[in-house]
Amino acid sequence: MSDRREFRDLAEPEEAHEAIASLDLAPEPETVPLREARGRVLAERIDAELDVPGFDRASMDGYAVRARDTFGADEVDPATLDLVGAVHAGSEPAVAVEPGTCAEISTGAVMPDGADAVVMVERTTEVAPGDESGDDAGVDAVEIRTSVAPGDHVMFAGADIAAGGRALGPGTEITPREIGLLSALGVDAVPVRGTPTVGIVSTGDELVRPGGDLHSERGQIYDVNSYTIAAGVEEAGGEARLYPHAGDDYDEMERLLVEASEECDLVLSSGSTSASAVDVIYRVIEERGDLLLHGVSVKPGKPMLVGRVGESAYVGLPGYPVSALTIFRTFVAPAVRRAAGKPEPQTATASGRMAQQERYSEGRMRLMPAGLVEDSDGNTLVYPVDKGSGATTSLVEADGVVVVDPDTEYLAAGESVEVQLFSPDVRAPTLFAVGEDDPALSRLLDRVERPRYLPIGSRQGLRRLRDGVPDAAVVAGEPGRDPVASPDPTGDDEPVPTEVLGEWTREWGLIVPAGNPDDVTGLADLVDRDLRFVNRDSNAGVRTTLANALADVADERGTTRRELTEAIDGFDRAVRAHESPARRVLAGDADAGLGLRATAERLDTGFVSLGSEAVRVHANPARADKSGVRQLREAIADGDDVFATLAGYGR
Amino acid sequence: MSDRREFRDLAEPEEAHEAIASLDLAPEPETVPLREARGRVLAERIDAELDVPGFDRASMDGYAVRARDTFGADEVDPATLDLVGAVHAGSEPAVAVEPGTCAEISTGAVMPDGADAVVMVERTTEVAPGDESGDDAGVDAVEIRTSVAPGDHVMFAGADIAAGGRALGPGTEITPREIGLLSALGVDAVPVRGTPTVGIVSTGDELVRPGGDLHSERGQIYDVNSYTIAAGVEEAGGEARLYPHAGDDYDEMERLLVEASEECDLVLSSGSTSASAVDVIYRVIEERGDLLLHGVSVKPGKPMLVGRVGESAYVGLPGYPVSALTIFRTFVAPAVRRAAGKPEPQTATASGRMAQQERYSEGRMRLMPAGLVEDSDGNTLVYPVDKGSGATTSLVEADGVVVVDPDTEYLAAGESVEVQLFSPDVRAPTLFAVGEDDPALSRLLDRVERPRYLPIGSRQGLRRLRDGVPDAAVVAGEPGRDPVASPDPTGDDEPVPTEVLGEWTREWGLIVPAGNPDDVTGLADLVDRDLRFVNRDSNAGVRTTLANALADVADERGTTRRELTEAIDGFDRAVRAHESPARRVLAGDADAGLGLRATAERLDTGFVSLGSEAVRVHANPARADKSGVRQLREAIADGDDVFATLAGYGR
Repeated sequence: MSDRREFRDLAEPEEAHEAIASLDLAPEPETVPLREARGRVLAERIDAELDVPGFDRASMDGYAVRARDTFGADEVDPATLDLVGAVHAGSEPAVAVEPGTCAEISTGAVMPDGADAVVMVERTTEVAPGDESGDDAGVDAVEIRTSVAPGDHVMFAGADIAAGGRALGPGTEITPREIGLLSALGVDAVPVRGTPTVGIVSTGDELVRPGGDLHSERGQIYDVNSYTIAAGVEEAGGEARLYPHAGDDYDEMERLLVEASEECDLVLSSGSTSASAVDVIYRVIEERGDLLLHGVSVKPGKPMLVGRVGESAYVGLPGYPVSALTIFRTFVAPAVRRAAGKPEPQTATASGRMAQQERYSEGRMRLMPAGLVEDSDGNTLVYPVDKGSGATTSLVEADGVVVVDPDTEYLAAGESVEVQLFSPDVRAPTLFAVGEDDPALSRLLDRVERPRYLPIGSRQGLRRLRDGVPDAAVVAGEPGRDPVASPDPTGDDEPVPTEVLGEWTREWGLIVPAGNPDDVTGLADLVDRDLRFVNRDSNAGVRTTLANALADVADERGTTRRELTEAIDGFDRAVRAHESPARRVLAGDADAGLGLRATAERLDTGFVSLGSEAVRVHANPARADKSGVRQLREAIADGDDVFATLAGYGR
Repeated sequence: MSDRREFRDLAEPEEAHEAIASLDLAPEPETVPLREARGRVLAERIDAELDVPGFDRASMDGYAVRARDTFGADEVDPATLDLVGAVHAGSEPAVAVEPGTCAEISTGAVMPDGADAVVMVERTTEVAPGDESGDDAGVDAVEIRTSVAPGDHVMFAGADIAAGGRALGPGTEITPREIGLLSALGVDAVPVRGTPTVGIVSTGDELVRPGGDLHSERGQIYDVNSYTIAAGVEEAGGEARLYPHAGDDYDEMERLLVEASEECDLVLSSGSTSASAVDVIYRVIEERGDLLLHGVSVKPGKPMLVGRVGESAYVGLPGYPVSALTIFRTFVAPAVRRAAGKPEPQTATASGRMAQQERYSEGRMRLMPAGLVEDSDGNTLVYPVDKGSGATTSLVEADGVVVVDPDTEYLAAGESVEVQLFSPDVRAPTLFAVGEDDPALSRLLDRVERPRYLPIGSRQGLRRLRDGVPDAAVVAGEPGRDPVASPDPTGDDEPVPTEVLGEWTREWGLIVPAGNPDDVTGLADLVDRDLRFVNRDSNAGVRTTLANALADVADERGTTRRELTEAIDGFDRAVRAHESPARRVLAGDADAGLGLRATAERLDTGFVSLGSEAVRVHANPARADKSGVRQLREAIADGDDVFATLAGYGR
């Protein structure tokens, strides 16, 4: 093996924050058009350069008067003023209001010379000559039925904000409201903090950009970190630039990091997870920059680097997506926001109780991804989401992180914890269900608002439902053999009390190549012939159904089920998802696989039917009224269209 | 006057919500590149089309083995396996692991045929032939010092998510985390909800786009609503399109509204505030569309229209910016979010107590703009911000709105209220100060984080400080005549107990045209000669200083101050802001104005010095430790650079 960098002297998280804060990522201020200024941050104070309004302005429809002429006027004893003309908004007054006269005026119009108040139209009556009830055509005077004081219903020039006044301070984030004030001031070019440019270099020979051709046989995987971190950079107010992937070659890595450093305020690498790539980056930073810190005492994310490349700041993120995004959010995003002048978002947190105990004793701070579920009392339960850093699904299966102190070895079930939500808008899902992987269920979930479903299989699903965490479990099993009320498939003793939200049936059997070239007819062929089989994992309900069917064959033959399963080539070759056996068959890796008719139709394979099994959705009875649980119940009840479109499905 | 639409039958706010909800604004779904998908909302479910990972993957650096070969191995009795080669991430294994052999493997690499587990490198020792301590060059075997089970440190194909599995449901908002999962699935074209297009037609002959030339004498004002509402539309997830302003002409209004309706999902007009324009819009909607509702029982915002133009939805907003934005936020933004598929943001609210009583009795729901200030105990005080709907500064002087029920006639001081914040990130300012309009203060405030300053004058400022709402008041007055401890300029009896945060002096006098063409030498010229003067308003401290100086002149002449002020042409011609008299002089509207030497220098006018006055910053002593108050105290103490750059300023 090559030499390895052991991250022995791990820095405390606080030191990592300080190291990053010591780097300067802030770009020069710039000027943007007002129309594009939303979300930016003012680089300097804006003073008003003109009065708003720019003239004495009528703030009511009515008549511009000299207030003195109305003194004493009321309903009983109105003042009558000669009408000398009209002033409309957007035009220069062509009249002046002399003593004893008035002018019609619209809201927003310029007060004519001489006038110092407006009488609202509702308190006036037009008068035609010789006709007290007059109409528009002949009006030459107006009765004023109220008295007004100078300034009434007039907004004086500069009353909103006057020229020279402080309008907005530096550091103000520009929202629609600030755009309103800037518009009123006529400011159409806004001096704002620059957007920090963040270059992203993902390293690893195995990476392929999404959309490219993937060669799994060569160990290629799609590059998750480039787009994920880019989105995180943009969310924090930065501009992300993606660079081509770098392999483990020193010269290539150096060229890319130096190129990025010349173009960006901050360079991020997400390390290949192989030790040799980390070594290469390490050497490049030491030779072309300055390494301030390597290794942070935090899980996930230990192998984090902080330093400089050329004139730019540099942070090396771990390679695993969950680790990379967690470290980015925790350490880098605050620095990007600071550089962009953006305030730290109000930390959104949720308080809850641990749904289960969690042991931890690694002696470094842990950022534990956690999911939320509301119990029947509306309290929040918190459960750890730990599928390993390599699992990208855990990105969306968690709602936030619980910061676990290095000295905490143990979180007890029921212990209060605080979850730092991924964003202030994160809410617990309306439905948290687990269990069998079923295509009809997947479609039904589309009709539930914000559901969360973990396809962990019928057996595990029931176990979790028993433990009180999820709202519901989806269980597949042989019809008539209720896996819940009767012999408990979990192997535990007590039956789980549940409320059945609904059920349906699905046809199961053997997936074979199109045209069934081996003429498979049933389970006996798997036992008796030389066929390569692919099974589902032991949590899958359909595997229990298969086991039960094999037990029936064993009974017929007067042998044991074990003897039959041992005779099947591949009975223990188990895959986790409902389509996986079919895909193995399609790939030519197997002659038959356990699966559903619906899957065979979807993937155009052959199918040998072995029967129908029931799929039941069991809810925690205490949570039967949660909105998502109700929505799922309704979706099943109204789901005929779903069952009709899936081959082999029924009620 | 023209006929007026009286909004007599006002709809309840709930009816307005329903009317808007009955309109369909949702555009067709579209497909966007993954790189641009952040913030969008999935239009349909995304299932995995491939296994992630796509192959059985080593999750540690170490040696790929057949687990069976390690059974029983431990530190004392290691198993020795022949090394047959190496597999690196991103390359296809060139070796197979036969019984008794192992292969070096990197994290992320494809498991070679035959191997079913990985032994981590830390539990192994390389062995060279005939050299137990061997080095890389000659290694041909490896000692395995632990036993592993099949699957240890291997992530099986599809273990993260398997082909056919449900990845993300419809309606999911795409954050960096979803981008991570979509990247892992290789999805680079994402089906998302369309962005509703919202056309904005501002009406009013008087409007000029920001950046254009403004003719105030014709009553022109900058168009505030177009950009403000456009920013609001974008914040809600829509795309805004601005149309040219429409005047009150029927044909022009019809042409614009119909054009916008053909291009947009929703058309918004912001009505000119003149009654005739409202009438014209009203007629266009009735003739070219369908009017569902006119007039809503809410303040501000009564004159709101809801209907259709052609095939598009239509909402008519009021013309005043505060009303327009309030109505947009309350009624329209939720519909735009719904159309975009965006969740309603968590309503951010702040609970507080009314800082003062507020009467209200108009019988319609009031959306009362409110400001927040923290008192010395960290409790939130809430005060109404009511500068009239025509004031754009009230957009930024408020932090949210208090919804006041139509039946509430009175909010008592101390009463608990809930403020709906303009956004979840709104926080009370760190400093809420009021008082004299002073250019040095404005610069000092740049050094305070999130301050709020209302330039309401020294007199009003002291009054408010006495009422307990602001943290500090800035008071200008004649040196030696302490406006606070000694004769109270507010006219109230009790002196206000305050803590002085700092003070400075500024030179005041008469602003005259450049070169002082009238040879003004002092106050006597104003009294004795035929000069047009512009004064400041009675809240301005500098006006008090002027009054005191005139009292001294009166003493010298053996007359009363009143006689002198009556002799000055324009002593009562008062303007509110510190630069305004100078600007009147510059415009030729006056021969002399009350002002500061600093203003004269800035605007290149002449100046006749009449003395220096003190400016003191008085804090509410209970709040002297608030962070913004401390920052202002420090800014004043460290403010020599500010005072040095402003002519006539000193300590």
